[in-house]
Amino acid sequence: MSISSRPIGVFDSGIGGLSVLKHLLLSLPNERFVYLGDTARVPYGNKSAETVRTYARQCAAFLLRHDVRAIVVACNTVSAVALDVLRDECPVPVIGVIEPAAREAVAATRNSHIGVIGTRATISSNSYTKAITRLASERAVMVHAQPCPLFVPLVEEGWLESPVTRLVADEYLRPLVANGIDTLVLGCTHYPLLTPMLSSMLPDVALIDCGACTTAETAKILGIQMESTSMQAAASRTLFYVTDASPNFSLLARQFLGIVVNDPVTVDIDQMRTSS
Amino acid sequence: MSISSRPIGVFDSGIGGLSVLKHLLLSLPNERFVYLGDTARVPYGNKSAETVRTYARQCAAFLLRHDVRAIVVACNTVSAVALDVLRDECPVPVIGVIEPAAREAVAATRNSHIGVIGTRATISSNSYTKAITRLASERAVMVHAQPCPLFVPLVEEGWLESPVTRLVADEYLRPLVANGIDTLVLGCTHYPLLTPMLSSMLPDVALIDCGACTTAETAKILGIQMESTSMQAAASRTLFYVTDASPNFSLLARQFLGIVVNDPVTVDIDQMRTSS
Repeated sequence: MSISSRPIGVFDSGIGGLSVLKHLLLSLPNERFVYLGDTARVPYGNKSAETVRTYARQCAAFLLRHDVRAIVVACNTVSAVALDVLRDECPVPVIGVIEPAAREAVAATRNSHIGVIGTRATISSNSYTKAITRLASERAVMVHAQPCPLFVPLVEEGWLESPVTRLVADEYLRPLVANGIDTLVLGCTHYPLLTPMLSSMLPDVALIDCGACTTAETAKILGIQMESTSMQAAASRTLFYVTDASPNFSLLARQFLGIVVNDPVTVDIDQMRTSS
Repeated sequence: MSISSRPIGVFDSGIGGLSVLKHLLLSLPNERFVYLGDTARVPYGNKSAETVRTYARQCAAFLLRHDVRAIVVACNTVSAVALDVLRDECPVPVIGVIEPAAREAVAATRNSHIGVIGTRATISSNSYTKAITRLASERAVMVHAQPCPLFVPLVEEGWLESPVTRLVADEYLRPLVANGIDTLVLGCTHYPLLTPMLSSMLPDVALIDCGACTTAETAKILGIQMESTSMQAAASRTLFYVTDASPNFSLLARQFLGIVVNDPVTVDIDQMRTSS
């Protein structure tokens, strides 16, 4: 099997990573993908770093069994606490979502005030603040971080533009607006589904979608040319696996990807190890 | 060890079961308790019935190792899909939350219109509707069931009486109000924290708290006299265990119980079996 025919592995704690997969499918039409959602143990965001590292290793081990040529960690929590561990232990490139989005935010800001929104775990980890500060190098960039724990359940409820969601967003975004941000990192893979509402609420703010940035990073690292394509036939380039047969997967997959996907295969990864 | 000195085991997928433990502590002052929150795998509500049964068996097995005299399943999802399995396999009484709350609702309703709110999993299981219909026997009782998936994250965010929570409740409760319910089962262990808001929104509706009903059922089954007591020293009668050291446990425990509890002990229950 030649290198270019090996698939790219993508994993997330659940279905959120599909918003990253969507960009990979739309921009890399000649690649195949293996997507793993650890739906039996979702969410990772309220678990200890040690437990998240254990789970991340098992996800990576599962993907390596599929002879993947790279692993995209389509999960902010794992990117925040387990990327180093995975890079140490995996024989293929491991690409997280935080650094690409942080780099894009630094490039986009004009007034050096960057907002970051994410789950409580992602924000508490300070990963975006550290990455942005490091990448800004000599420039003095101010990072304004805000946890938005209700956004994920609102997205999963499908209330993408309801008055409730606007009221919640008003509450969460007020301090960021007060600080005059001109750039906002959507630091959670569920949040891109709120883009229409957020754009209308923050018309002068650049929204950074980690899926798009991570796709560009993946192409660069693997030396692949990016090309635009439609989602037509995209699903057939992807194998979907989950760790629990959640009845919501197909419904949410359609919401995240905009296409109907095949039923995922349920697998048990509890005993998997990166070193066999 | 005589029977009465053996503790009562209580488990939940996470911290919600503490609202049931609260009633047990307040009404059974001479009992000791072992509480297990499966925080590594919370929530159970979006997992398949088969996976929930596996997890429930492991929780019960852990409690049996503590020589418990009974197991209170302080979790609606487990009560809905795994109670029969646990009753078959455990050598002690196993008490769920659904049947006691259903019985209380049937006794409370005057106009035979009962509302039930819960997570999507609990409502989809139809467990409350079936139990209420069965317990109403000859009476024709109408059950109006409504999933409220945003209530748990709102409670965990601490927004117990915020305008957002009222707006969400308005939306969820509208069909129940339109159906003229006079009784509402709070079919999720997080919901009792919303009682002040729900009471003010539904002043003429009897709210059924499964924690209170389940405590009465436990006392009856074990032949214990119920007595009122304060939460003073209650925590010292309980051993707390979790499957993942979530930093939020102590904070949320204070919110649910109204007292400061000791840090829980983290345990691994993945390999436990009810039959040793």
